[in-house]
Amino acid sequence: MTTINWGLIGGGRGSQIGPAHRLAARLDGLYNFTAGALDHRAEEGRAYGQELGLEPSRSYGDWREMLAGESARADRVDLVTVATPNNTHFEITKAFLEAGFNVLCEKPLTMTPKEAQSLIGVARESGKICAVNYGYTGYALVRHMRAMVARGDIGKVRMVFTEFAHGHHADAADADNPRVRWRYDPEMVGVSAQFADCGIHALHLATFVTNQRVERLSADCVSLIPSRTLEDDAMVNFRMSEGTVGRLWTSSCALGRQHGLGIQVFGETGGLRWTQEQPNQLFYTPLGGRTQIIERGEGGLSPEADRSSRVTIGHSEGMPLAFGNIYSELATAIHALKAGQTPDLGLVPLVEAGADSISAIAAVARSGNNNGQWVEL
Amino acid sequence: MTTINWGLIGGGRGSQIGPAHRLAARLDGLYNFTAGALDHRAEEGRAYGQELGLEPSRSYGDWREMLAGESARADRVDLVTVATPNNTHFEITKAFLEAGFNVLCEKPLTMTPKEAQSLIGVARESGKICAVNYGYTGYALVRHMRAMVARGDIGKVRMVFTEFAHGHHADAADADNPRVRWRYDPEMVGVSAQFADCGIHALHLATFVTNQRVERLSADCVSLIPSRTLEDDAMVNFRMSEGTVGRLWTSSCALGRQHGLGIQVFGETGGLRWTQEQPNQLFYTPLGGRTQIIERGEGGLSPEADRSSRVTIGHSEGMPLAFGNIYSELATAIHALKAGQTPDLGLVPLVEAGADSISAIAAVARSGNNNGQWVEL
Amino acid sequence: MTTINWGLIGGGRGSQIGPAHRLAARLDGLYNFTAGALDHRAEEGRAYGQELGLEPSRSYGDWREMLAGESARADRVDLVTVATPNNTHFEITKAFLEAGFNVLCEKPLTMTPKEAQSLIGVARESGKICAVNYGYTGYALVRHMRAMVARGDIGKVRMVFTEFAHGHHADAADADNPRVRWRYDPEMVGVSAQFADCGIHALHLATFVTNQRVERLSADCVSLIPSRTLEDDAMVNFRMSEGTVGRLWTSSCALGRQHGLGIQVFGETGGLRWTQEQPNQLFYTPLGGRTQIIERGEGGLSPEADRSSRVTIGHSEGMPLAFGNIYSELATAIHALKAGQTPDLGLVPLVEAGADSISAIAAVARSGNNNGQWVEL
Amino acid sequence: MTTINWGLIGGGRGSQIGPAHRLAARLDGLYNFTAGALDHRAEEGRAYGQELGLEPSRSYGDWREMLAGESARADRVDLVTVATPNNTHFEITKAFLEAGFNVLCEKPLTMTPKEAQSLIGVARESGKICAVNYGYTGYALVRHMRAMVARGDIGKVRMVFTEFAHGHHADAADADNPRVRWRYDPEMVGVSAQFADCGIHALHLATFVTNQRVERLSADCVSLIPSRTLEDDAMVNFRMSEGTVGRLWTSSCALGRQHGLGIQVFGETGGLRWTQEQPNQLFYTPLGGRTQIIERGEGGLSPEADRSSRVTIGHSEGMPLAFGNIYSELATAIHALKAGQTPDLGLVPLVEAGADSISAIAAVARSGNNNGQWVEL
Repeated sequence: MTTINWGLIGGGRGSQIGPAHRLAARLDGLYNFTAGALDHRAEEGRAYGQELGLEPSRSYGDWREMLAGESARADRVDLVTVATPNNTHFEITKAFLEAGFNVLCEKPLTMTPKEAQSLIGVARESGKICAVNYGYTGYALVRHMRAMVARGDIGKVRMVFTEFAHGHHADAADADNPRVRWRYDPEMVGVSAQFADCGIHALHLATFVTNQRVERLSADCVSLIPSRTLEDDAMVNFRMSEGTVGRLWTSSCALGRQHGLGIQVFGETGGLRWTQEQPNQLFYTPLGGRTQIIERGEGGLSPEADRSSRVTIGHSEGMPLAFGNIYSELATAIHALKAGQTPDLGLVPLVEAGADSISAIAAVARSGNNNGQWVEL
Repeated sequence: MTTINWGLIGGGRGSQIGPAHRLAARLDGLYNFTAGALDHRAEEGRAYGQELGLEPSRSYGDWREMLAGESARADRVDLVTVATPNNTHFEITKAFLEAGFNVLCEKPLTMTPKEAQSLIGVARESGKICAVNYGYTGYALVRHMRAMVARGDIGKVRMVFTEFAHGHHADAADADNPRVRWRYDPEMVGVSAQFADCGIHALHLATFVTNQRVERLSADCVSLIPSRTLEDDAMVNFRMSEGTVGRLWTSSCALGRQHGLGIQVFGETGGLRWTQEQPNQLFYTPLGGRTQIIERGEGGLSPEADRSSRVTIGHSEGMPLAFGNIYSELATAIHALKAGQTPDLGLVPLVEAGADSISAIAAVARSGNNNGQWVEL
Repeated sequence: MTTINWGLIGGGRGSQIGPAHRLAARLDGLYNFTAGALDHRAEEGRAYGQELGLEPSRSYGDWREMLAGESARADRVDLVTVATPNNTHFEITKAFLEAGFNVLCEKPLTMTPKEAQSLIGVARESGKICAVNYGYTGYALVRHMRAMVARGDIGKVRMVFTEFAHGHHADAADADNPRVRWRYDPEMVGVSAQFADCGIHALHLATFVTNQRVERLSADCVSLIPSRTLEDDAMVNFRMSEGTVGRLWTSSCALGRQHGLGIQVFGETGGLRWTQEQPNQLFYTPLGGRTQIIERGEGGLSPEADRSSRVTIGHSEGMPLAFGNIYSELATAIHALKAGQTPDLGLVPLVEAGADSISAIAAVARSGNNNGQWVEL
Repeated sequence: MTTINWGLIGGGRGSQIGPAHRLAARLDGLYNFTAGALDHRAEEGRAYGQELGLEPSRSYGDWREMLAGESARADRVDLVTVATPNNTHFEITKAFLEAGFNVLCEKPLTMTPKEAQSLIGVARESGKICAVNYGYTGYALVRHMRAMVARGDIGKVRMVFTEFAHGHHADAADADNPRVRWRYDPEMVGVSAQFADCGIHALHLATFVTNQRVERLSADCVSLIPSRTLEDDAMVNFRMSEGTVGRLWTSSCALGRQHGLGIQVFGETGGLRWTQEQPNQLFYTPLGGRTQIIERGEGGLSPEADRSSRVTIGHSEGMPLAFGNIYSELATAIHALKAGQTPDLGLVPLVEAGADSISAIAAVARSGNNNGQWVEL
């Protein structure tokens, strides 16, 4: 299989997300890092790209320059990753889709539901892939949960409880720390802080595992550190398209929790429990039976799980490999697309899921500002 | 210390709660099981009491008979435990208090807030102890959490997340099973099922650990098994008297959970985490520090924890001993009372806490029936 | 069922073991604490016994006085617990057996294998019960393991790995602390310290669960704190009567371990894993299958486990209840004996097991002093 | 930093180790996979190499061909990984070192101590790096343990207990399965099976963390499945160069264990505990204090741990990243070497460690065949 030319926008020196994407794209050797516009400061971006091995002519000073440059080339990149500040996602993603590039956009896809809806149209018209990076869905056992639910192992899903709690913003003295403050600044992040930043991963996980959409919700949003305008802790109750009841808790002041993303799924004939911090085990309890520990890498897992594993049972696989699984699914899909086939994108969060998330964020803010009134998405 | 004469009402042959109380009262050798009215079927109750070693004259056929019989004796019982069906708690507790007995009533204290309020008056007038059996507060490390919060170890408490989830009523085929069905029958249990049965323990735990009262709440109550009139799963958001935000989840359809009572407490300078199924460890994370594992029985715990432990570190203590701690605190208090001293009842849930719980149950039902509208207690 | 008169020798004021025995004997209401010789200081022992509720005439100053006093009574005690210093166990146990009392002796049964062997004869001749207090065998799930092994759930047992590691004697500065020092003093404890104190529990557990005897062993005994004459850490390899390979580690310098008694059993068709600090779960892995979590109190456990449980699933039961199970089995057996029936003592460690342990301790010392040479028991 | 040309010998189609090395080498973008001799079947090897992207002229049919071909090039590979069958490691490693290549050899380095010793000389003479792939040492928290021990956080190390137990060869019916059988065939693996395959990782971990060598040992080797000539379970007691006592258990019949590599280190002033299956947490207990949970990625870890981490706290990192850390240390060292500097290879297992391991394997076999007699390495 020939490798795919890949470009990155954003992710400049010192960012966390840039290295994470480059690592994920490199993992399976399916991509060449070929082009980039890594920084809003043109010279810095160009220099950094070259340090990372880009040819000077393809280390651009600006995403528009990159759009023009790559559009003009025969060997142009086949996938562009957008990892810029949130409020630029829409514009860049739209432009690249319209120019015929496949795009993987960091979450959130856009700042408003209206933008997100319009991107759905743009993507469909383009015939290109527009994916959104809900990277935790790449874990083998998350995909196995989805497969188990789909094939009916736990019956109709009655309830899902999901959470994403950490304690890294619990220090009130830190509220003015620029590294933290912007995350609670409506100018920077829009109508929601902790829910939009973390909670949305938990919500997307619920939709991914159950293969249902969120229809309506009620949110209790609070600022545990009073100086914050936006919420640092929220509880969201929701209802899904096939009747599943949902509950979601997110917090950034939960001292003792590190990166507490997890999900419990309760069906008519079984229950499932998984946490991101122990991602290689899935706890499965059939109705009337004992809890079993499903191990990543054990024999007889679903095809979705098997193709998402790289090492043998008992060797932990962590977050970077989950992230890499998103890239490998995309690679297969892009090859299919180039071969004129219909790609299988069943496991990749796409523009529609991204738009649903934006609607959910708006709804959480709306409900949170109205005493938890139930709102439709 | 002389032992205390103790009587039990309810807890007949085959009940779970009767043996639990007798075990708890026996643990420390502080009580004599002296009198009882164990069954609503008079002959059966008398027979069973004698089998358990009661003198025939004190194995009564009926609580009224016991009230009369014990009131007439010089060596009458000093503590009466009420473990009858819920809808009789009020009447019996009231009658024994008025006759000058100390009472430990099973939860729920009453069926309505009005009854509960009136009991507060009765108890105060009687000068006797009216305790309610929130037995999980007896765990040494629960008491230590309360002590840590009280002495400021985690600063002002911002948030508490508590839960009580099990999966023992998840089988829809079981909905008609009499052993399960009554628990969801409004005639039998009133306005709430799973919250009143289990959730209330979690809510009381939150008030016990923070030493705050619940002021208002919003509840999302659902029947995951549709044939049920009352809820089998609920999420409750609440606010406490010193500003703490509360969240509580309870479920009886959470397959894979056994008896999932737990609490997480997040303050300005630290976090705490404890679960009933691993009760001998308490996870404590100071702001800016690492999570530490506090072991029951370690040196230097609070006096409250120390006096609630019986065996050395590393030997687990389970639920019966927690329950026994309620009885031992009561014994000390009864001795003090008899000696004309003011008893220390700081660690025992009393009639006021019982009444607060009844108000909370009513409020949950009210909010649950009104789309989660916030209601005052 | 009438209660059994019970007497205690040793366990004076301030001891840990005395309260533990009294609690265990009290738990199920099957015994009356009727007589005692609680201290080697006659007056102190008499006074303390009376404080604990003994009649003055049965609160003895000395075990010989108690032997004479009780032997002369029609209502004499039916069970005597011996909880005195180790070097007196043999003499007292022998005397009471010969006088026709049932005896529960603390471990170690004797100081030498020769004494232990002679006690076997004494016990058999007496027709009375001579039990040894390996209390950890009282846990419901330990008994369930034994039942699973006996009924072939894991096939022929190939290997057992057992351990008892703690860190409570790891402080070198503590080596002169009298509370610790005596435990490593050959005058006080004989040929072995940590193995005889803790390791022997792990070894007995292996024999209890597999229902096999230890035939030969090789030991590596070390003093991690060099000033100690006897070992504070030992590794023992052994072979059992039906061919099972055994491995045992014990340490008192394992900082971070509290009371780390545990066992792993590996058979031809399954594996089991249990630890004393999480005693309500048993991990079972059938060959070719997933690990299952067996919960104490779940439906369908073995009769041995069921009769050793007191509270419902999800409520932890700890060490005192395990200990209490030894007493309740003894009570049933004593009633049978008094009724002229053959008692079922299958779950109670008896004099033969106690003697095997003494042989094992001697063998460990012998091997440990000879570079780990294999020795027969 | 320019990338390093890298070549792989062995790791043909269907192998596990080949993809693992290619993934590890690719992770940080520090290497170009430039040359290979992937299969002992020349044509298959050439074809597979080209499929993986090698230029035809550098996809060799044979390691000798590769040695000749690469030696002749100006742009020859700077690192060769040897992942061939064990009995060829010595010959190939020696040849490439002598020709001036840096080599990373899979374990075991050689089949005999004599060969291993000779390689030490070859490596020193060559001035090139000869590393051995003890990949588990790449975990960030393993490196942090080493740093903590080195800087005295737990004082003098008294004892280390390490283990590597799995249950993947527990099925007796599998004994004739070719996939399993060769692992117990002396012709294929030499004098030891399970110890040489897995136990040696645990032993190396002990030496890595304590920075001590093993001086003498005593082994109890057994074949739990009797048809096996070599051991499938072993217990090894050992003594280290600074007096630390060591204990090591390894098994391949431990049903329920997946890939149970772990280590406990007990010093005069603290204890440490880590397991490969939960590699992002390290349990640290200071003398007289509580157990603390050290998280990979937390602030203030040692430089060794920090440079071995790629993602933020709470995101698990698994085995492939540990493996990748070996490659990244080697890359830094190779660059230093090329720049004429002395490379820092403190964290990379080198030929001396590899030779020590071979001596240990021989000693285990020798002792195991002599009733566990103590032998010098």
